[in-house]
Amino acid sequence: MDLSTSELAARIDHTALAPGLLLEAVDALCAEAVEYGFAGVCVPPWFVERSVQNLAKVKSSRLPEVVTVIGFPMGYSATAAKIEEARRAFDQGAREIDVVVNLAALKNGRWSAVRDDLQSLITLSAMSSRTIKVIVESAMLSDTELIKVCELANALEPDFVKTSTGFNGPGASLKAVKTMREVLAPGIRIKASGGIRERGFAEELIAAGADRIGASNGIALLGENAS
Amino acid sequence: MDLSTSELAARIDHTALAPGLLLEAVDALCAEAVEYGFAGVCVPPWFVERSVQNLAKVKSSRLPEVVTVIGFPMGYSATAAKIEEARRAFDQGAREIDVVVNLAALKNGRWSAVRDDLQSLITLSAMSSRTIKVIVESAMLSDTELIKVCELANALEPDFVKTSTGFNGPGASLKAVKTMREVLAPGIRIKASGGIRERGFAEELIAAGADRIGASNGIALLGENAS
Repeated sequence: MDLSTSELAARIDHTALAPGLLLEAVDALCAEAVEYGFAGVCVPPWFVERSVQNLAKVKSSRLPEVVTVIGFPMGYSATAAKIEEARRAFDQGAREIDVVVNLAALKNGRWSAVRDDLQSLITLSAMSSRTIKVIVESAMLSDTELIKVCELANALEPDFVKTSTGFNGPGASLKAVKTMREVLAPGIRIKASGGIRERGFAEELIAAGADRIGASNGIALLGENAS
Repeated sequence: MDLSTSELAARIDHTALAPGLLLEAVDALCAEAVEYGFAGVCVPPWFVERSVQNLAKVKSSRLPEVVTVIGFPMGYSATAAKIEEARRAFDQGAREIDVVVNLAALKNGRWSAVRDDLQSLITLSAMSSRTIKVIVESAMLSDTELIKVCELANALEPDFVKTSTGFNGPGASLKAVKTMREVLAPGIRIKASGGIRERGFAEELIAAGADRIGASNGIALLGENAS
């Protein structure tokens, strides 16, 4: 796969999710996303309003989307809480939400609880004409669990399935992205995230089927030459 | 401070908060909490119902409380989402909630946002006659910030201020607990948590003013001799 730097940039969610993130850092993130042509800025819920305001000041036909995270990074909060969090994020202007699957339910084989939680969030997102990515934390799953959650996604039709939060152990792997691409219906895209720090690795993940890359240092990703 | 093992146990919240926690582990946690006389079991929201059911089967005059976490561990979710999460936890039988302060607002000096978020949760908890602990993540705060959030707690009167989530860098320190005890009104208790793995350290924290200890291996804490 030979991607130009601008093609690669257009696939990156420029991301900052630390609990003590500063407003100045979010302002810089937004400015950089505009400058480099990133797909989106991915920020905590508390920074959605600020990011929307930052981007509203920019005159451009191709602005980054504001992306936020829901039930992050544990996924074990109540569906009602996730729904409330998503609703607020949409009200404040987020265009995309990256929602952590209920990993507790999943790891305990309670698939109806996993499904009901996702179904509610995917329905809300669809009704709001927004984009939803389901974070499955692939590094925590067995092959069987990863396949099963992708099959569930095929039934529920989120816009994306996303590999990782970046906060619970290892992040994206080539193997996980390949498995996801094999199992997921063609209409469901893949976001790879967590520990992606080199352009060569990002390009391998894209070649394996990733449509979007989440990275906390998107600029460094662009700067390096392709491997 | 010379605490007997049972006195120490009565101050410990026996804790398991990993995202992929298994039901069997929660069942064991509850059984151990009964056996050793721990103050509480601290589990993710998804396990509150199971923990309440486990403890309901036990005949004893002194049962551990079911404790859960809200807005955990980032603290940057919307107040409405935290409120919904707390309400569900109370409905399912949690007696105590450990709520993460909005660290994003705090680190950016937006104290009115910090206050409004806490005020809502403390009011809900008081109206529900439950116990609320405010997690301030002391290791992430400057001395000035730690003092200021304790002064805010004095105004809002939560039951406890708690040092740490255990998931964002270092946990409890003697220095933080001493500062908290100096600044907090006498009626507000302190929970120390995060990285407490030795009985000697637990006893030092208690001597410095901690009323409760959060630990993921409470039994090991009891087993070691006092230093």
